Amino acid sequence: MLILLRHGESTWNAKNLFTGWIDVPLSERGEAEARAAGSLLREVAPDVVHTSLLTRAIHTANLALFEAGLSWLPVHRSWRLNERHYGALQGKDKAQTTAEFGESQVKLWRRSYDVPPPPLPLDDPQHPSREVRYASLAADALPASECLKDVVGRVLPYWHDAIVPSLRRGQRVLVVAHGNSLRALIKHLEGISDADIAELNVPTGIPRAYEFDAALRLSKPPRYLGDAAAAEAAAAAVARQADAKKA
Amino acid sequence: MLILLRHGESTWNAKNLFTGWIDVPLSERGEAEARAAGSLLREVAPDVVHTSLLTRAIHTANLALFEAGLSWLPVHRSWRLNERHYGALQGKDKAQTTAEFGESQVKLWRRSYDVPPPPLPLDDPQHPSREVRYASLAADALPASECLKDVVGRVLPYWHDAIVPSLRRGQRVLVVAHGNSLRALIKHLEGISDADIAELNVPTGIPRAYEFDAALRLSKPPRYLGDAAAAEAAAAAVARQADAKKA
Repeated sequence: MLILLRHGESTWNAKNLFTGWIDVPLSERGEAEARAAGSLLREVAPDVVHTSLLTRAIHTANLALFEAGLSWLPVHRSWRLNERHYGALQGKDKAQTTAEFGESQVKLWRRSYDVPPPPLPLDDPQHPSREVRYASLAADALPASECLKDVVGRVLPYWHDAIVPSLRRGQRVLVVAHGNSLRALIKHLEGISDADIAELNVPTGIPRAYEFDAALRLSKPPRYLGDAAAAEAAAAAVARQADAKKA
Repeated sequence: MLILLRHGESTWNAKNLFTGWIDVPLSERGEAEARAAGSLLREVAPDVVHTSLLTRAIHTANLALFEAGLSWLPVHRSWRLNERHYGALQGKDKAQTTAEFGESQVKLWRRSYDVPPPPLPLDDPQHPSREVRYASLAADALPASECLKDVVGRVLPYWHDAIVPSLRRGQRVLVVAHGNSLRALIKHLEGISDADIAELNVPTGIPRAYEFDAALRLSKPPRYLGDAAAAEAAAAAVARQADAKKA
C-alpha cells in the first residue's frame, strides 16, 4: 500500500506568493492539519516514510507520525520529492507577477504541462546549488525552473528506485510531499493525460491510499483516509483557490 | 566530529519511575530543552543524525533540528541506541522497588556495571519482541533486562558499523539518545573504567562534541556546546538526582 500526504498549509499560502523550493514553515493551521492526518494514519500503520528535503513536508511528517505513535518509523528524504521549482517567480506575489508578465503568460506557467517559468541563473543566490542541503548533488542535476513535466521526470526515478522495491516486498509506504510532486506521482499511478492533470487537485493534510496487485497495478480505486466527502470537498476548495489565482 | 545529545526531560522523570524501553513522551520542560539544544547545534551543523527507536529521543531530535533549520538532514534510527532495558523494574516506582527488593539490591541494579535487574519473561506483554517497532528483529536479539555492560555490548556494533564510517569520511555526526546508551558510548570514547563510569552523568539537552584525529583518537578534550559552566552544573544536578535516588 502507498499513502500520499500533501503537507499542511504553509505561512506563504495566505500571502499568495510563489513558494516552490523556498523553505517556508507550516502555518498554525498547517500544523493542525498535520496532526489530524496523523490520527488517520493509525488505521494504515505505514512501515516506512519518505519526505522531500523541504521543512514543511518534514514537519508535517514529524507531527503526523508523533500523533500516530509512529515516530520510530524509518524515514528517507530526497530532493526528488520537493515541490515544483518555480524559477524566477519564487518569492514573488502572484498579482505582481501578473502585472509584470501578463495574465495569459502567468496562467500558462501555472497550469500548462510543459512550459516552465523563467529559470534562476546558476549564480543567483537563490539557486539550490548554493544551499548546503543540496551540496552532495551535481549542480546541473538541480532544477532552476520546472514545468510539471520536469517534475514527473525527476520524481519517477525515486518512485522506481526507492519506493517500488518496498511496495514489492509488501510494505506500506508513506510519502509526505507537495502539491506538484504528488500530482506528478498521481499522474503516473492513475494514468492521467498531460491535459487532464491540470484539473487534479490534492487536498492538504488528507492521506490518500493506493493498493496494488502483484504486478503493481491498482487493485482498487484510490481512496482518501477518513471522511471521503470531507476530502473531496477539500480538493474542490483547492481547485477553487487555483481558479481564483488563474483569474 | 561526533555530537552526543541526551533527550530532554520525560514525563516519567518527575514521577520517579523506572522507564527503560517504555515509550514515554517528553515533558514540556523536555521539549524546551530540545529546542534550546537546537540553537546550540547551528554552530556545528551536523551532516547526519542517528536516534534510538524511542519517541523521547526522536522528538528531541525533531525539535532540535527544526530549531536549527536542519530538519532536512538524513536520519537513521536503531534499537541499539535505546535506553538501558530495566527488565522487570520498568514502570515501577523507585520507592516501591526499594520496599520490595531492599535498598542495597536496588542500588546494585542502578549503579553496578554488570548486574542486570530481573528480566521480563519472553511472554510478558511488555517484552519488546511484542512491539511492532521491533518486529524485524530476532526475538532473542532483544534485551529483557540489561546492566550497563550489556548496553555497551549492543551499542558498540552500531558505533562501529553505522557511525565510524561517517566520521572517517569527515562527516559531523549527531547522535540523539539516552542517559545509559550515551554513557556506554562515552565509556568507550573516553576509556573510562568499569568502576568510574557509574560516576559519569550526562545532562539532558546539552550537546557534547568530540573531535578525532585520522586514527579516530580524540584530538582534543570533549566539550559541551554553549555555556560550559551551565553544562557542568546540569551534569552535577543529574549526579545529585542519582544520589538522592540511591538513598
